[in-house]
Amino acid sequence: MSRKIYLEGAPLNEALTKWFRKLDSEGVGRPLSGETIRVEDSLGRITAKAVIAKISSPFYHSSAMDGYAVRFADTFSASETNPRRLRIGEQAMYIDTGDPMPDGFNAVIMIEDVNIVTSRQSKSQESIVTTQKTHDSFIEIIAPVTPWQNVRVIGEDIVATELIIPENHRIRPVDIGAMLAGGHTEIVVRRRPRVVIIPTGTEIVEPGTELKKGDIIEYNSRILSGLVSEWGGEPVRFRIVPDRPDEIRKAILEALDMGDLIVVNAGASAGSEDFTAKAMEELGEMMLHGVNIKPGKPVILGWVKGKPVLGIPGYPVSAYITFQLFAKPLIYRWQGLEVEEPELLRAKISRQVASTLGHEEFLRVKVGKVGDNFIATPVSRGAGVLMSLVRADGFVRIPAMSEGIGAGTEVDVELMRSKGDIENTIVCIGSHDNALDLLANILKKRYPKFSLSSAHVGSMGGLMALKKGEAHLAGTHLLDGETGDYNVPFIKRLLSNKRIILVNLVYREQGLLVLKGNPKNIKGFEDLTRDDVVFVNRQSGAGTRLLTDKCLRELGINPKDVKGYEREEYTHMGVASAVLTGIADTGLAILASARALGLDFIPVAKERYDLAISHEFFKTEMLQYLLKIIKEDAEFREMVIGLGGYDISDMGEVMCEA
Amino acid sequence: MSRKIYLEGAPLNEALTKWFRKLDSEGVGRPLSGETIRVEDSLGRITAKAVIAKISSPFYHSSAMDGYAVRFADTFSASETNPRRLRIGEQAMYIDTGDPMPDGFNAVIMIEDVNIVTSRQSKSQESIVTTQKTHDSFIEIIAPVTPWQNVRVIGEDIVATELIIPENHRIRPVDIGAMLAGGHTEIVVRRRPRVVIIPTGTEIVEPGTELKKGDIIEYNSRILSGLVSEWGGEPVRFRIVPDRPDEIRKAILEALDMGDLIVVNAGASAGSEDFTAKAMEELGEMMLHGVNIKPGKPVILGWVKGKPVLGIPGYPVSAYITFQLFAKPLIYRWQGLEVEEPELLRAKISRQVASTLGHEEFLRVKVGKVGDNFIATPVSRGAGVLMSLVRADGFVRIPAMSEGIGAGTEVDVELMRSKGDIENTIVCIGSHDNALDLLANILKKRYPKFSLSSAHVGSMGGLMALKKGEAHLAGTHLLDGETGDYNVPFIKRLLSNKRIILVNLVYREQGLLVLKGNPKNIKGFEDLTRDDVVFVNRQSGAGTRLLTDKCLRELGINPKDVKGYEREEYTHMGVASAVLTGIADTGLAILASARALGLDFIPVAKERYDLAISHEFFKTEMLQYLLKIIKEDAEFREMVIGLGGYDISDMGEVMCEA
Repeated sequence: MSRKIYLEGAPLNEALTKWFRKLDSEGVGRPLSGETIRVEDSLGRITAKAVIAKISSPFYHSSAMDGYAVRFADTFSASETNPRRLRIGEQAMYIDTGDPMPDGFNAVIMIEDVNIVTSRQSKSQESIVTTQKTHDSFIEIIAPVTPWQNVRVIGEDIVATELIIPENHRIRPVDIGAMLAGGHTEIVVRRRPRVVIIPTGTEIVEPGTELKKGDIIEYNSRILSGLVSEWGGEPVRFRIVPDRPDEIRKAILEALDMGDLIVVNAGASAGSEDFTAKAMEELGEMMLHGVNIKPGKPVILGWVKGKPVLGIPGYPVSAYITFQLFAKPLIYRWQGLEVEEPELLRAKISRQVASTLGHEEFLRVKVGKVGDNFIATPVSRGAGVLMSLVRADGFVRIPAMSEGIGAGTEVDVELMRSKGDIENTIVCIGSHDNALDLLANILKKRYPKFSLSSAHVGSMGGLMALKKGEAHLAGTHLLDGETGDYNVPFIKRLLSNKRIILVNLVYREQGLLVLKGNPKNIKGFEDLTRDDVVFVNRQSGAGTRLLTDKCLRELGINPKDVKGYEREEYTHMGVASAVLTGIADTGLAILASARALGLDFIPVAKERYDLAISHEFFKTEMLQYLLKIIKEDAEFREMVIGLGGYDISDMGEVMCEA
Repeated sequence: MSRKIYLEGAPLNEALTKWFRKLDSEGVGRPLSGETIRVEDSLGRITAKAVIAKISSPFYHSSAMDGYAVRFADTFSASETNPRRLRIGEQAMYIDTGDPMPDGFNAVIMIEDVNIVTSRQSKSQESIVTTQKTHDSFIEIIAPVTPWQNVRVIGEDIVATELIIPENHRIRPVDIGAMLAGGHTEIVVRRRPRVVIIPTGTEIVEPGTELKKGDIIEYNSRILSGLVSEWGGEPVRFRIVPDRPDEIRKAILEALDMGDLIVVNAGASAGSEDFTAKAMEELGEMMLHGVNIKPGKPVILGWVKGKPVLGIPGYPVSAYITFQLFAKPLIYRWQGLEVEEPELLRAKISRQVASTLGHEEFLRVKVGKVGDNFIATPVSRGAGVLMSLVRADGFVRIPAMSEGIGAGTEVDVELMRSKGDIENTIVCIGSHDNALDLLANILKKRYPKFSLSSAHVGSMGGLMALKKGEAHLAGTHLLDGETGDYNVPFIKRLLSNKRIILVNLVYREQGLLVLKGNPKNIKGFEDLTRDDVVFVNRQSGAGTRLLTDKCLRELGINPKDVKGYEREEYTHMGVASAVLTGIADTGLAILASARALGLDFIPVAKERYDLAISHEFFKTEMLQYLLKIIKEDAEFREMVIGLGGYDISDMGEVMCEA
């Protein structure tokens, strides 16, 4: 039994061409046939036939006003000097807006312009209602009327035989109204394409299952189902199929009767992909295995019994990207639609990105507008990091021929959020603190229009981002070893040309995290030189790193004697996770992170955590709202205290204006 | 019985302020409470609580590759000169991607980098699968591994306690995946606001009812329901309620138990509005009656038993606009969202628009991009013309203090279609022909990305629009009385500075339309001077008007002797409709319009109908597609012939390049 380990990858364009050429040659890429549904249920559906008015609207002449219907011939000679009287009920008929015109009548005089007289005396307008049916009353007019004045003639809105909406049109609320007005109660719309999604893998389990090591929660099929729904299709989620060739074959055959497109979502292991590819070969045709994109390489294009079968990789980001590339255009075509081009935004990339030659990469980025510049910051590139999609604002495509993008380069971002949302996002770059997550949540809760996006690059990185105009504000807790002062000396040194307002967020405790019960009995930094103790560090430029180095220096410890000193994490939670999972025995972080993961905490220092805010953005609406929350929001303060280890006595205070 | 005829109108801002202040003071404008639903059913719903990861993902260390798990301590001294052997099954364990790391193991070597040896001989990679479980085999390594290489550590994607999505967030497919991965199977989302829509009016009937004069098909409630759905709410459509005060009161009381907001959609008559206002006064509070906007003035804001009740006018455009203004922000607030600002587009208005002082007007416009300019053309302003909404690309707000907008003025258009769609729209201004409707439909069918929008201003108007750069092409059938030539002399005269390519669309028959059976026995233009014959004309500048005038001139008839000569319609269908409905006895139009409305047709002339295309746009993709259809699309040709009265022998031929 031999095993194919290297996939032969095709360039993306080639793979797409092959896929759609096959669909065309098999006659499968055309719009689906129509189905008849009720007009009132048609919102969002796509017309499969033009809708032509069957009747006119209005379909009879009707009054556009409340007033009196008259015949214009009866009014010819009326003038101020020679007013004409028209007998109510004979020459002038009271009429409400929308009422049909009496036969032979062809103009309406607004009630406001009418003077009612009776054979005995004039009556004022107030008694119109009571007099309207009095046969001895008249209206008196002092000018001839224009033919058809104040009359909604037949077809004023819609003329029978007129095109209401064309074929391939997505139905909006107003279209529903117009179709009903045009005499339709049922119309023909495109059948929704049915996409059967088969999750495979022996290790995957349904969400909610009691988990044991080795289990993987199955969620890809739910992401793909959501996308199918958003694109107008109807997802059918198949049961989970174990990684066995016979089971996969059986599932594909069963699924073929259920949908227009079959998607096999492989488990994360290479084995299951092979089974999918083999199943396609055995049942029909395996057209292609492997596309040179990143993430997403292990795509499989297949064809079984006249239907397209798509093999999608197991990593969630790979699954998402390949599904967009190969399934979306097909689902659109079946509805008679074309995929709308993604909105492109020109942005500057905030840091250098190296990329593999020969692979087109889909880089996820967060985007913020700082001043006049849109700044794109790459997020995690791992194919298994679903949160990189949750957090991303868009994609940057790095061509296969490129080795990467230099910092500051202008790139086109394919947006996943609207430009408006991006413009309403506060960009915070710098040190991480759990209170920032709470702040982001409260901001969204109080002012749904605005968002806070934070990127964690350490305090120093945050100040540099402020300097380069890439952030509105930076979280910072930089301790000056000489003066013992926080942040101010660094801002004066690094941002001498920039006006900065420094606002305190919290004081917080930093300490060493250890497993519950402190099994290695670690008491402080002095234990870090022990042979049986592995440390996990923070990246250089982080405030916590400065604190670590200061503590070691004060104790006269050489970093070389600390095992694990070279392993760097970028967040408090990263450190906590390393300790929890046994990667390290201890690391320096805030109390909140210990609490979150149920670790013990050995206090080392209390430090000041400030927000450095660029003066030019300080007065903007969104930053003022953010500051309002920091200064006075009771719920926010309560939640911060609830995290543990925080002192909020200076929260919202301006510490320094430089 | 007194009757209030004039509404006291409040300025829009004042009305909105009053409405939302009332909601706030009653505590009704806050986000609705949450309801628990399954994560997989949550697409598009809004979170009512932040979603925090319950478990990490992955929740155990797992292999990121297919390969061998090792302990990095075992690999310390390995080098090319001193390779180390690790016994398979003991020091090196075969592992698939996604499998949990065996206890104590902390790195993975990719299978591609592994050399398998047995106690007797080396084996090549091809036999890995068969040897992976042989306990007498070893892997040989020539370099130490990095700790945790190729391992997905706990929380690589999501760390327990991490914020997955904040409160007030609209759930996307990727969010569903992340919430499932983070250990959630149920979440709390905002309850959908329920909006009860009560259609009132004695004259309104359900769609599909056998219609008699005076009936109005009820469709407003379906438009409003569609909008509620699009905004995330749940529409409840109440039964039709007759225009009777007691019935309306009863309906409001019944509806109060069914929803969060009650909307009474008055019949079109002022009477029914009064009933609504009165019902509110009797049941609770009538806060305001009448807002100074156009269309949409007769809005009623009410408050009954702690719930908002909105009275919406009967005309469809008024209903649509007022519902957007007063209901949409409320439905959004209840979900914890803010209404997104409409996309604004700067465009030039193509013709002068007069507006009433004291009313803020919502002008519907079509927008096209011609060259570098966006051009906005007003469509019908009637509050009863629903098709003005169907056809509109957006709104222009004319402030209450303005008397109108001059032609060529730059205005902000609040877009209803995407800018991308507008850029892909061919703008055709000029004479109307039914074949243009077919062309629009076929273009959308063949190339869903593109649209054809046509405005009907007559042939001369079309040429002027070409001249001013407001259209890509113009439909024209201008007969030069002297030479008998079509279009070319006019283009040479009017567009001397512009390069135009003239392409034939059709030859078509023009004739006099009369009622079926020709009751007045009209034989030709000579009958137009008869006392008992009323004519309906086309506007000056229309090709058909030139033809009319030529016919009259040749017969020596003075237009003054033609009754109805001064009544002008703008389209063939307008003329046909006037004849069908008895407004006129006859008018000149094309055979297709007679057929559409079942009229008889007395042929007068065969004329040439061309498309004048601006040379600068001729080569654009969208125009080339359009020309391809005109030149060679069999279905299009068949449909045109099916209309009747057309000769397509020159269809698609270039008649002249100037």
